[in-house]
Amino acid sequence: MEECELLEAYFDRLWPIMRSITGDGVRKTHDILNEIVPLDRTEIPSGIKVFDWTVPKEWVFREAYLIDPDGNRILDAATNTLHLVNYSIPFKGTMSRSELDNYLYSLPEQPDAIPYVTSYYRPRWGFCLTHAQREALPEGDYQVVVDTDLIDGSLTLSECVLEGETSEEVLLSTYTCHPSMANNELSGPLVVAALAARLRAWPNRRLTYRFVFAPETIGAITYLSLRGEHLRNNLIAGYVVTCVGLDTELTFQQSRNGNTLADRAARNTFEKTDRRFNVRPFHPTGSDERQYCSIGFDLPVGSLLRGAYNQYEEYHTSLDNKDLISFEALSESVSALEEICRTLDANRTYRNLEPFCEPNLGSRDLYPTLGGTISDQDIKNRVRAMLWLCNACDGETDLIEVSEKCGYPVSLLSTLAEECVDKKLFAVSG
Amino acid sequence: MEECELLEAYFDRLWPIMRSITGDGVRKTHDILNEIVPLDRTEIPSGIKVFDWTVPKEWVFREAYLIDPDGNRILDAATNTLHLVNYSIPFKGTMSRSELDNYLYSLPEQPDAIPYVTSYYRPRWGFCLTHAQREALPEGDYQVVVDTDLIDGSLTLSECVLEGETSEEVLLSTYTCHPSMANNELSGPLVVAALAARLRAWPNRRLTYRFVFAPETIGAITYLSLRGEHLRNNLIAGYVVTCVGLDTELTFQQSRNGNTLADRAARNTFEKTDRRFNVRPFHPTGSDERQYCSIGFDLPVGSLLRGAYNQYEEYHTSLDNKDLISFEALSESVSALEEICRTLDANRTYRNLEPFCEPNLGSRDLYPTLGGTISDQDIKNRVRAMLWLCNACDGETDLIEVSEKCGYPVSLLSTLAEECVDKKLFAVSG
Amino acid sequence: MEECELLEAYFDRLWPIMRSITGDGVRKTHDILNEIVPLDRTEIPSGIKVFDWTVPKEWVFREAYLIDPDGNRILDAATNTLHLVNYSIPFKGTMSRSELDNYLYSLPEQPDAIPYVTSYYRPRWGFCLTHAQREALPEGDYQVVVDTDLIDGSLTLSECVLEGETSEEVLLSTYTCHPSMANNELSGPLVVAALAARLRAWPNRRLTYRFVFAPETIGAITYLSLRGEHLRNNLIAGYVVTCVGLDTELTFQQSRNGNTLADRAARNTFEKTDRRFNVRPFHPTGSDERQYCSIGFDLPVGSLLRGAYNQYEEYHTSLDNKDLISFEALSESVSALEEICRTLDANRTYRNLEPFCEPNLGSRDLYPTLGGTISDQDIKNRVRAMLWLCNACDGETDLIEVSEKCGYPVSLLSTLAEECVDKKLFAVSG
Repeated sequence: MEECELLEAYFDRLWPIMRSITGDGVRKTHDILNEIVPLDRTEIPSGIKVFDWTVPKEWVFREAYLIDPDGNRILDAATNTLHLVNYSIPFKGTMSRSELDNYLYSLPEQPDAIPYVTSYYRPRWGFCLTHAQREALPEGDYQVVVDTDLIDGSLTLSECVLEGETSEEVLLSTYTCHPSMANNELSGPLVVAALAARLRAWPNRRLTYRFVFAPETIGAITYLSLRGEHLRNNLIAGYVVTCVGLDTELTFQQSRNGNTLADRAARNTFEKTDRRFNVRPFHPTGSDERQYCSIGFDLPVGSLLRGAYNQYEEYHTSLDNKDLISFEALSESVSALEEICRTLDANRTYRNLEPFCEPNLGSRDLYPTLGGTISDQDIKNRVRAMLWLCNACDGETDLIEVSEKCGYPVSLLSTLAEECVDKKLFAVSG
Repeated sequence: MEECELLEAYFDRLWPIMRSITGDGVRKTHDILNEIVPLDRTEIPSGIKVFDWTVPKEWVFREAYLIDPDGNRILDAATNTLHLVNYSIPFKGTMSRSELDNYLYSLPEQPDAIPYVTSYYRPRWGFCLTHAQREALPEGDYQVVVDTDLIDGSLTLSECVLEGETSEEVLLSTYTCHPSMANNELSGPLVVAALAARLRAWPNRRLTYRFVFAPETIGAITYLSLRGEHLRNNLIAGYVVTCVGLDTELTFQQSRNGNTLADRAARNTFEKTDRRFNVRPFHPTGSDERQYCSIGFDLPVGSLLRGAYNQYEEYHTSLDNKDLISFEALSESVSALEEICRTLDANRTYRNLEPFCEPNLGSRDLYPTLGGTISDQDIKNRVRAMLWLCNACDGETDLIEVSEKCGYPVSLLSTLAEECVDKKLFAVSG
Repeated sequence: MEECELLEAYFDRLWPIMRSITGDGVRKTHDILNEIVPLDRTEIPSGIKVFDWTVPKEWVFREAYLIDPDGNRILDAATNTLHLVNYSIPFKGTMSRSELDNYLYSLPEQPDAIPYVTSYYRPRWGFCLTHAQREALPEGDYQVVVDTDLIDGSLTLSECVLEGETSEEVLLSTYTCHPSMANNELSGPLVVAALAARLRAWPNRRLTYRFVFAPETIGAITYLSLRGEHLRNNLIAGYVVTCVGLDTELTFQQSRNGNTLADRAARNTFEKTDRRFNVRPFHPTGSDERQYCSIGFDLPVGSLLRGAYNQYEEYHTSLDNKDLISFEALSESVSALEEICRTLDANRTYRNLEPFCEPNLGSRDLYPTLGGTISDQDIKNRVRAMLWLCNACDGETDLIEVSEKCGYPVSLLSTLAEECVDKKLFAVSG
């Protein structure tokens, strides 16, 4: 099966699960992702202090619905997980239409969309519905069933570490707390898992690659409480992957620093392909880059998106569904990330061992011998790229920087630089 | 009375006074400004050495006019102070039309304007008139009366210091040597005095504000010979205020350095309002920034103007009069400067005491608790600004820099940062 | 005779000479250039190691041609030096049309152009011809005469050093290995020799000027093996001069560093004149800047061109001939370089000895004494330039930087700064 068909099949299985920041929905989701690539799971008990936060109670969801005055079961979370305010406390009772209204959430400006509402940090229950449906609810008594629990359980994190020749690491991070929405956010976990599967199949990896699946915000915070010190010592580049399912141009959001290896590799990779993409500065109001790029960590972590959070009108509603996304776009997102990883893996620093005047490339069989007749564009490019490498590889300039100077992609530069190493003209210096 | 009406009333009283770089005209001018805000006056004796210069003789003006061949009194300085070359030496005598012509100044290209001419550093006398009037002067003998004196007197400086909680100072500097002209330069002294009156009424001031009234060039040089060392130790931002009466967009001219706090505060303040304004680089060919930004001082002093020196055709002529300026524009100039001062006063540096991952704002009552339903734009902005502060306040980044990163004005950031201090989340570090 | 007529006369004598990287053709060329300006010649023996290279055998060319099946002498190098593959090994023999074809070079896409082909580093012989002529060559036997030799001789370098008051040097470098082509590259040697003649006639020179004539690549490498250490210690700016004969805008190609004195002087000089010019970044795929700007040397050397290498279709063919170039353009190239040299010679660093407030220019007769009446634009510019100098000459800022700040050319600034030195207001600090 092709990758995009596979992704669609996994999507269909993941869609109906009631996910939240904790609970069995998350575990079932990770079970399925584990079929794409093997994951190591960690459970962090409720109540553990993680920096300024506390691991929350585990949410147990069994069922939730209303019985309307005519006896119909409506707003059943089994039909659409968005009907229940996520992380709702349990409640059973009967109330009038007008009293019930205090517990209903809808969007007057998008009357056909069910909003996605959460209440993690204040005990609440509630139901979400389209504004059209809300306006049509008849007077009368409603029976409310919110069969949930908040228990001392745990928060679920999974990761996959693909070891390479060095301990230098690349991080890919995604979140698995959103229930039935497609772009935000089944796209991120599917793309990251598929990327891990691809890199696992690489014949060799210079770098170590780490793939993280956790609930948004509290999950990233908890993860950093476990691995933050390790990442500070080993991480050379990372990417939060989110909202990567739309058939629009790629967006690379820079790290807080703006010029880390993560930034340089992503920008360079996209510039050297035909991709449509845009680059935007860091801002700490989005997803888990808020944690990775907090003052104390300030890790080299950017974000990859297509479009952007809440810049599409279906954002955080039931309209963010399978119709909205494209599995070709998902697969292309995997490819874009894989190319960034290839750039990172190839990005070494070389030293030209003949720094005074240009080396005699001809004597080393690295240069065509008949001047004036090189007609083939590939040979011309190869020669020019070689001259650039000789002029730029001073032992401090990495291949991404050489690529920025000369315009040739890191892949070509890497091939040529390794030839120069074979001919004893270059040494690897980093 | 409204501020602009008050400014007009003061303008009318200041207009007819014969000002120069020294003399009673300056003292009368400072007497009137002293009614707007209390000033401390200093008299520096003629002959005192100030850096490369010497405090000049004091100019005594009594009267100056011509009697034409028909016995009419013409070019009387009591009618328009511009008729007399400013700082003219005394002269009495009779001379022919053609001999007199050597002492007349007019503008052939602006035949209805009387030019403003000074001769401070070479002993001269002369009369200024419109070119039309000059061409109509009949042949015959003219009686010349220039009843002036140059005496060992003093140069007059005034200042107002509004003390704040810290010794860090903001300087506002203007000049009072120009006789009857409106934009250049009754506008500057009126605006600076009105600003001082406003800041005097602030309930509290973190910074100390210093307002200086002195003749242009020699006055600023003399002032720096007195206070230069103090300013080098205490000044954090300053502005020369000149030509601020036209109803045109604001011009901020940067300091010599171009990126001092004076520059950053002015640019940031104007960018965050709806004001039309432009920013231009420093150049040492204008007004007293030549002294404040000389190599040896290089103080953080920019300039505020509306339009610019000699970029309006009425510049340095009798056409720069009350008709040319707007008292609403004067008052708006006061407001623009007051806003810069508010930015400076609020511009502190904070340290987020929870630097690892984002702080739990909800637990501190600093974050709305129901995700997905914040519809009010003010709340959204507040939350975003708070996240920016948490991510940027590393103990070295001041609020102006945070504002540049995130786009929110310093006023909002300051309010939120102080809330974080109250909640023990932030500490003030500068 | 005017310079451009002289240049044309020298061009006509240089044109028919069979030049190469070594040999008598180079020596004859240098003999003729020596008539323009006296040159010192150095001969470097074949076989000497120069960095990663070896000085090649000297090429002896006597004659080369074919006898076609009808007995006609064709492709005679005496008719056009491009007919022979440059540096061909000797060969005499007879071969069929089809066997001969292996030794022929033509350009199908430019059927009327003879290509310029060299084979320095692999022993080969061959003939170049228009594609039209190649296609018309009849079947039959051809007699081949390539009467050449490769002997242990030497490589020829010439230089002219015009000493100045200081040992700081400016380098002008050109190459003399190309046979009968006009823009690339009789233009470079002619322009550099004419420039040397002009600078030799300057009444005085602050800097030392060095003019180098050598074969491309191996010549520059050999030259650097002799003078590289000296240049590292003394060179403050240099320019490779090549392809300067077209009647198009000037191109300044920056040094590897991009902001050396060579770059700053060239950009500033061109910006302050009416010249059309463009600036482009360094790239190590052109001419001898590859050697001067190699990692180990990284000298402050840019390049001056009109148009660019191989961006005109006649490049490296028989169409790059006298018709293509303009001797007025050559002479203008000399002028452009002379102006850069004037900028460099005038570019000093001064210290204003009255750094606190502006100096009293009037008391030193450096300022007009009657304010408000300076109508002459030259006087205004002079006063403004003087104020800029007083504000900028801090003992570290050179005149090029002052010029960038204020817009006035270095020539005016230099005149004024020297006046200030005469008045003891400025001191020279570099």
